[in-house]
Order: sequence, then structure tokens, then C-alpha cells
Amino acid sequence: MAKTMPPSPFAPATLPRLDPIAGVCFSTAEAGIRYQGRTDLMVAVLAEDTAVAGVFTQSKTASAPVLTCRKHLKKGEARVLVVNSGNANAFTGKKGKEAVDITVDAAAKAGDCARHEVFVASTGVIGEPLEAEKFAHLLEGLVKDAAPDAFEPAARAIMTTDTYPKMATRKALIGDVEVTLNGFCKGAGMIAPDMATMLCFIFTDAHIAAKPLQALLSEHVETTFNAMTVDGDTSTSDTCLIFATGDASARGQEPITKAGSKKLKEFSAALHDLMQDLAIQVAKDGEGLSKFVTFIVEGAESEKAARKIALSCANSPILKTAIAGEDPNWGRVVMAVGKSGEAADRDKLSIWFGDHCVARDGERSAEYDEAIAASYMKGREIVIRIDVGVGKATSHVWTCDLTHDYVSINADYRS
Amino acid sequence: MAKTMPPSPFAPATLPRLDPIAGVCFSTAEAGIRYQGRTDLMVAVLAEDTAVAGVFTQSKTASAPVLTCRKHLKKGEARVLVVNSGNANAFTGKKGKEAVDITVDAAAKAGDCARHEVFVASTGVIGEPLEAEKFAHLLEGLVKDAAPDAFEPAARAIMTTDTYPKMATRKALIGDVEVTLNGFCKGAGMIAPDMATMLCFIFTDAHIAAKPLQALLSEHVETTFNAMTVDGDTSTSDTCLIFATGDASARGQEPITKAGSKKLKEFSAALHDLMQDLAIQVAKDGEGLSKFVTFIVEGAESEKAARKIALSCANSPILKTAIAGEDPNWGRVVMAVGKSGEAADRDKLSIWFGDHCVARDGERSAEYDEAIAASYMKGREIVIRIDVGVGKATSHVWTCDLTHDYVSINADYRS
Repeated sequence: MAKTMPPSPFAPATLPRLDPIAGVCFSTAEAGIRYQGRTDLMVAVLAEDTAVAGVFTQSKTASAPVLTCRKHLKKGEARVLVVNSGNANAFTGKKGKEAVDITVDAAAKAGDCARHEVFVASTGVIGEPLEAEKFAHLLEGLVKDAAPDAFEPAARAIMTTDTYPKMATRKALIGDVEVTLNGFCKGAGMIAPDMATMLCFIFTDAHIAAKPLQALLSEHVETTFNAMTVDGDTSTSDTCLIFATGDASARGQEPITKAGSKKLKEFSAALHDLMQDLAIQVAKDGEGLSKFVTFIVEGAESEKAARKIALSCANSPILKTAIAGEDPNWGRVVMAVGKSGEAADRDKLSIWFGDHCVARDGERSAEYDEAIAASYMKGREIVIRIDVGVGKATSHVWTCDLTHDYVSINADYRS
Repeated sequence: MAKTMPPSPFAPATLPRLDPIAGVCFSTAEAGIRYQGRTDLMVAVLAEDTAVAGVFTQSKTASAPVLTCRKHLKKGEARVLVVNSGNANAFTGKKGKEAVDITVDAAAKAGDCARHEVFVASTGVIGEPLEAEKFAHLLEGLVKDAAPDAFEPAARAIMTTDTYPKMATRKALIGDVEVTLNGFCKGAGMIAPDMATMLCFIFTDAHIAAKPLQALLSEHVETTFNAMTVDGDTSTSDTCLIFATGDASARGQEPITKAGSKKLKEFSAALHDLMQDLAIQVAKDGEGLSKFVTFIVEGAESEKAARKIALSCANSPILKTAIAGEDPNWGRVVMAVGKSGEAADRDKLSIWFGDHCVARDGERSAEYDEAIAASYMKGREIVIRIDVGVGKATSHVWTCDLTHDYVSINADYRS
């Protein structure tokens, strides 16, 4: 039912190559949940003793799979991950919970593991019952046939109307042992009619217990996925999970069991970098976008305040349409800063479009040059920097512009 | 510079007739602040002992006129109101304050009154210095020539890119004396390139002191102007002022000096009704709109929570574009409820499009009929009702849809 979109202008020419990770295998299938002629079911099979951590949507109407993942996460152990695309199993009432139970039971049986070691995610239309019977019988075969070198097909199976699969890989040392981090995700925000879910799955062979893993994931999600917006709309299903198989301990990596361990410094940086890479890929595949936009807020009271101001800019329709129109309309930046509700000194506020200072100390800057500013706005990647003049904290948000194509994709569905 | 818009499909066929109010006179002029061939300066001259109350933008980057009005309001006395269109005098630094001072000085001299009895408002582009010298010399003549029966020209002089002047009138009894309330306003939200200000001025001959007047205005603004949104963008300049000349006491109205007086019951209802009328007129002139939309939220924990949920719906781009596309996409309503952050019971959530129940108790309703829902969405006025199932509080928000024309108006400025 979803229209086929032209690829984002930011679609990568080549996809990154993700090396296999010991203890992580994938299968995919065409279960015909909604789409025809493409995979829509992905199973990841994880080695024994795999640790797991997760972060989920803040929505008050979270989907059935999210509620189950939250519950299973308490033990921090994972063996099987089952993800379907085409149906979000959100707002499906009691039937939604039943569909999750059927899936978890079948996966636990196939993977010969406990129910709490099974994790599930669904993405696609909201409000349509998900018929788990359509694919539960496939899980045994999928678990059996799972193979290690299959990140790209796995990334493709979870896409809804993403115009490209989003993948990233990093290496890091823990002590003197190199570990691998691979991740893939699918887009969030207004991803086509009826769809809106950000799913991200990260895998590593590092030996890190669930607690320190959770601390790292929770920390980095703030400055990566939570600093990215397409339209400010929060899905019922957003899920980000990280799985650590621990295989690296066989190569001499000392297991990390405590949060805050200094030995995780390089791993932590690599994880942040990978999550940032994926978050930017999501923003660069925003619906109908023509420009990728970064808002940097400086001089705020706190990092949280800085991010809220940046989000106020990044979610302002009037500012996003101005950017689509290549209009260096800094008055709208002032408006968005003001409406954020966070402290800002109107008389110290300064704004840069790229390197060009358009406003300084609360008024149009003396060096403002309309031609320079207008020329800058013609670029495909726009950086708007704002100093709000009340403190030292800084933050950033990535987003895209708001175009005619966005309205077409979301409004013209039936026409 | 602003494009000429086609009139809103909701533009009234005829404007209401506003009777003169004793003690309230108007003048207008073509000062050439920005526009050519139309009035852009409005002066209201008020009788001695006129009481005033006001509510202003919550923006942290409020304009110079707003800061001055807030200061002057402390004494609750008003004799002259000066409003210009074409330039918002916002984000204009020290020069902005100077322009206000020049205006206030000239108006106080012309009106033979104290500086604190002068109120000012500006609307139009942000960030351009306002040259008060262009019009300050006109104030003496304008104050002198002000005439009573001139609400419509006054309403027209403050328009920016509104497609019609917004006026309303009501009568009420205080004791057995009839008083008149007249008001006019100009549009808020994304009102055309560089413009975004909601200004509202209300006049009455009732004899009500500043304090009870302020209590009424503050109360009613919550359920009227604060329950209306075009795009969620807050201006630097929003101003709502009410002036009470007290002339009705000459006809026997007992002066009201205390807030909460039972004698104000009918007046309070009339004021609410007038403010609601004006707020709806603003939403019905939203940029590029094709539909007027009311979100009603029931079953919330508090009225504030209900309004926040309704605003979350009314400001959701993905939901507003679905409405523009006549798509009865209730999944997006669920999303918007969930992202509001307010308590909602997912398993008790029910949604109606008009009278048609599309979701009940957390899932698609048994009586859902796609054809009925789709047919309802073809109407010009859409009512979406949501029961969030956690309490008894209710609220509403008025808004409009998000269309291609909206993007054109805001993005295609330079193309």
C-alpha cells in the first residue's frame, strides 16, 4: 500500500561491509505479513550467555512488543530476536499481546531457551491486528538455518519505507583485545503512510555484562537517537537493543561487569560513534527531505536545555519550510529559541548560518550579508549555530527540511 | 514583499457590525512602514480612568513592545494604544527599545497622559529595525482626529497577511445595565514569510477595575487563544489587551472592584464567548488551510493534561497532513496521544471521527467502517474526539490542516 519513494538524495553510493561477529547469526524470510516480493521477517540467533540492554519509546501508548521487551530485559539475557516489518502490532489491544506471546513461545521453542531470552519488535501499520500465526511456524526453520555473515539482508528485512538500509560498523580495543560493533536500523518519524518506528539493533562480541551495557546505551542514546528528529512525532514502537555475545573473552578480553569501568573508554567512544552514524543516516532518509540540517546550540544553562532549544528549532514547521525554500530566515530561529521555554538572553543571542554570523547580541549582525546567507542556504547540508548567551552548555540536533514531498507522501495517500 | 494569499475558505461573507463604545475612538494612517497603499498604523484613544489588563507571549525572546506593555500594565491605567503592522520590532536590540520609547513619548504627549498609560504593539517582520521616526510625528494628529465608530478600519490596519479582518461583538448585563464588548484580532502562527504575531484588542464600556479585569482575561485566554494553534510556533510578540472605559457607570452600573464578583458572571461568559469567536477566526485563517479541525480530549487526569494531549494532536505534522489528505488515519491520533507525555490508558483509549467510533478500548472498534470514516474526512470542518480513559477532565483545541499551500507560502518565498 505504501508508495515507492525515490531514494533520498543522501542515500549512500555503497553500503558499508559489516564483518561477521562470532555468536551472531541471522535468517530472513518472506512471510507476506503485508508486503509482497520482499523479506519482512528477521531472526537473530545469539550465542549462550549473550547480554542485552535496551532503550524504548517514551510513548504512553507503547506497543505490545515494547511492553514485552521491557519485561524480558530485566534479566539481561538474550538468545533470539524476532523482528517483523509491515505491521507494528501497536494499538491492537488484547490481540496484540496474544500475537507477541505466540511469537515468543515459538521462538523460545525454536531457540531452546527461556521466554525471557526472546526479544521482539514490530514495525509497520498501527491498529491492524498482527497475525502471528502467519510466521510463527517459520521460526523453527529460521533459527536452524541462521548464518553469521548476513547483516545486510537482516537490515533490509526490517525496512518499511526507508529508501536505503542503514548500517554501520566500528572496532574498539578493550584492554588489548579488538572487538567489533555492528549495528543496523530503520527510519523513524514520518516514514510513509501509517508507519513510524525507529528500530535499531547493535551486536558486539565484547564481553560486557548487561548492567554496564545498559549504562552505555542509555548514555549515548541521549546525544544520538534522541538528538535526531524528522517531525517531532514519537512512535509507539521505538526500540534500540544492544547484544554482547562475550566471544572476545575467548581471545583474552577480561569480562567487564561493572558500569563506569575505565576499560570501556574506547568501546564507549566507538559505540557512541556508531549510534551517531546510524542516527544521522535516519535523519538523511527523512520523508521528502531535500536538505540535512544540524542545529548546534551553545551558551545554554545545561546540556538538556541546549538540546530542548535545538529540538524546538528542528521541530518548527515554519523554520523547516524556510530551509526547504533556501530562505536564510533567522527571525524564525529567534522564534523557535523563544518558544522552547528554556533560558536565553535575548540581548546576547547570536546566530550563524554556516560560518556567516547573521545575528549578534540580540540583533541583526553588522556583517550580515543577504547574498552570502542566501547562497549558503542553497547547500545540501545546512548547519545553524545558536549562542543563547546564558551559560556554557552545548548540544546539537540533526534533522531535515519540510518540503512539498513531505506533504505529498503524508497527505496524498488516498488521492 | 509578502505574497497576496487567496482568501481562506472560511472567510466570512459579511463582517459583524461593531457598535461604538463610549470612550473608545480610533484613527488609522498609511505610514509606509513596510506596506504600500494600505493602512499600517492604528491609534486607539481611551477615556480617562480606563482600566486595562493584558496577557502576553511566553516567549523567552519577547519583543520590545511586549516588555514595555508588561511594565506599563502594573498600574492598570490606559489612555492611548498605538499599533503598527509591517514590522514586529522584535530582535532589534537597543534600537528596538529606543523605537518604543520614541513612540510612547509621542503618544503620551499627544494624549496628554502619563507614559504608563500608553500601550504599544508591533507586528510584521522580525529583526528589521523599526523606524519610529517614520510615524511618531503622526500621532498628535491621529489622537486629535480619533473617531468612535471605526472598529473595522482599526481591525484592518493591524492585519499582516490575514486574509480577512477578525472582529466580534457581544452584549452582557452587569446588574441590570447592558454593556458592550467589542474585540478584533489578527492572526497568529505561520502568518506568511517573516510574520507571526497574534494581536487581540478588546474594548468594553463596563466599569471594572484592572484587577478583576485581569482575572477574567487570564482565565479565558487558557480555553480560547491558548487552545488554538496553527503550527505550534509561538511568536515573540503575542499580545492580548482588554480596555474597560467604565462609561456604563454613568448609566447606573455599579463599579466592580474585586476579582471573583458574582455580578460579573454574565460579563465573564460574554467575554469568553467573544474570545472564543476570535480564536476560531484565527484558526480558520491559518496559512494554506483547507480544513478547520477541533480536537476534543475527554477522560484525562486534568484539564491541563487534556489540553496538552489535544495540542500534541493539533501540532503533529503527520496527523495534520493526513487530515489534509482526507485520510481517517486514527493510528496517527494514537501516536500523538502517546507522545504528549500525559497519562492515557492505552487499553481504554477510544477515538471518534465525527460521530463515528474508529477505535474503542485500545483497538480498532468493531463498528469501524472505512467508507464512513473516509466520507467524514471529506468535510470542511472535522471534529476528532478522544477518550484517554484515565479521569474525568476534558479540553479542546482548534487548529487547521497542513497542506501543500502551507509549504508553498513558507518555503517558496524566494523561488
